[in-house]
Amino acid sequence: MISINIIAVGNLKEKFWREASEEYQKRLSKFCKLKIIELPEQNKYEDTEKILQTEGQTILKAVKECGGKTYLLAIDGKEYSSENLSKNIMQDSMTNSTINFVIGGSYGTSKEVQEGIKDKISFGRATYPHNLARIILLEQVYRSFMLAGGGKYHK
Amino acid sequence: MISINIIAVGNLKEKFWREASEEYQKRLSKFCKLKIIELPEQNKYEDTEKILQTEGQTILKAVKECGGKTYLLAIDGKEYSSENLSKNIMQDSMTNSTINFVIGGSYGTSKEVQEGIKDKISFGRATYPHNLARIILLEQVYRSFMLAGGGKYHK
Repeated sequence: MISINIIAVGNLKEKFWREASEEYQKRLSKFCKLKIIELPEQNKYEDTEKILQTEGQTILKAVKECGGKTYLLAIDGKEYSSENLSKNIMQDSMTNSTINFVIGGSYGTSKEVQEGIKDKISFGRATYPHNLARIILLEQVYRSFMLAGGGKYHK
Repeated sequence: MISINIIAVGNLKEKFWREASEEYQKRLSKFCKLKIIELPEQNKYEDTEKILQTEGQTILKAVKECGGKTYLLAIDGKEYSSENLSKNIMQDSMTNSTINFVIGGSYGTSKEVQEGIKDKISFGRATYPHNLARIILLEQVYRSFMLAGGGKYHK
């Protein structure tokens, strides 16, 4: 069973986001070993660059520890249809035992993270808050497995 | 104050989606008169075409009753950055007292709806379930007002 790690800066403060996340985590448990690795937001700093640098270091450290194939969620990344994302994840899982998805914090990600993680996924040109981005990602990963398994799954 | 109607087929079954919706409805109440018009899913029919036709008729009827400017959420629609969506909504509100956003049901929308509503918005190439699509839309409309007002609002 493939391991999927979601490496995310910040936590889900609102109960409804946590419950949405739990619902998809439950559904995904049939298909993969899912782990959500929450990294601390560096909101003690005033300076955005300092925040991005510090968060970036913890992101790259977590990615290294997880190993495997890594995708960064980025607005200027590659846009996949759900069908293509599904095919990609299934192909990755042939050659990797672990797939990681990285979601930055409120200020985005540092240059080092953007340069260090070559594969970037975009869920469109709109900017989403990090909590909603996490739910979108979970839903799309779940949809990927459902599509790969030929399961019935509505829009 | 501008009226914004979200015309959506189907309802939000899970409590966490309803609470997410309520949160954004509360936030949006400062900026617009928001109404969510839920139309019934025609899941009593076996035939997809019949479902789309029946849902399509109720959608077009609701759009006509609401009047104003209407956008259809469609995967092949125009992708806006959050900044451009904000500018668009603000421009629309100069010449319209009402803006409508239409979200289809589990099977999408009929040809008549797609042809009848010329302005289409896409939130990327991925397919989302209608409940998540509604939350994404609410968040982006909220973000539009925040951006227009110069409010501080994180990713």
